[in-house]
Amino acid sequence: MKKLSDLFVHTLQDVYYAENAIAKALPKVAKATSNAELTQAVEVHLKETKDQIRVLKSVFASVGQEPSGEKCDAIEGLLKEADGLMEEASGPALDAGLLAAAQAVEHYEIARYGSLREWAKVLGHDEAHNLLTSILDQEKAANNKLTAIAVNSVNKK
Amino acid sequence: MKKLSDLFVHTLQDVYYAENAIAKALPKVAKATSNAELTQAVEVHLKETKDQIRVLKSVFASVGQEPSGEKCDAIEGLLKEADGLMEEASGPALDAGLLAAAQAVEHYEIARYGSLREWAKVLGHDEAHNLLTSILDQEKAANNKLTAIAVNSVNKK
Repeated sequence: MKKLSDLFVHTLQDVYYAENAIAKALPKVAKATSNAELTQAVEVHLKETKDQIRVLKSVFASVGQEPSGEKCDAIEGLLKEADGLMEEASGPALDAGLLAAAQAVEHYEIARYGSLREWAKVLGHDEAHNLLTSILDQEKAANNKLTAIAVNSVNKK
Repeated sequence: MKKLSDLFVHTLQDVYYAENAIAKALPKVAKATSNAELTQAVEVHLKETKDQIRVLKSVFASVGQEPSGEKCDAIEGLLKEADGLMEEASGPALDAGLLAAAQAVEHYEIARYGSLREWAKVLGHDEAHNLLTSILDQEKAANNKLTAIAVNSVNKK
């Protein structure tokens, strides 16, 4: 990879892999949580994630690429951390830990979509820029919702 | 782990490991970048990271614990991603990719310190809460600085 356009496609493949991995992991997380608000937030985010995968397919199409995933070490590590919690924690520590792990994943996505949409702008991919911005806004909203659930519910229990 | 206090110590050990891993990785990143502003930002952040490791030792002390690290899969994955870039990318793609990787690491830390300082508050660890908030603010500032360098310098080149 030498050019920004190479990096853009590479990172798009990286988040496409990541979103698919997240969609696979979330049902297990929803099942492990015992806080009703958190469970519901995870379920809503699973639906959003599936939508985002569809939007990413449109991003690929808008830059003349076939959708494909590239193994993303970062999301593997983040999800492994959540898996570790589901093995080692229980009760209030499990809910608080899974919520925090979900926020770490959201923050990863916020970082990635923030970079991607800026690169799309620089590269003149206006449609990709708008689509990626819409996903970024959704991830930020999901993270804010998790913060509210942490402060008002999970951490109090 | 059953209680929030167990999770708090576990996550503190996790970020302690992560900060030490980051301190080891940053000199290599500074060497690989060719954008002067980015190199300088990485060098400044290395100094900040070393300070944060000292502050984390005070956090451990404030809750009556010895400082110790616990292998953190998330930071391993994030740093592996940066390593991959240094192997596969060059020129403008390398600078833009490393900057984005650094922002992904910052976002991971923002997520972790955000959770940790909220847990410290709930647990009545006021000194830990203040110390962790000071690190959180530093990480947010570092991330904003990287965004400015991306938009005003690296992405333009």
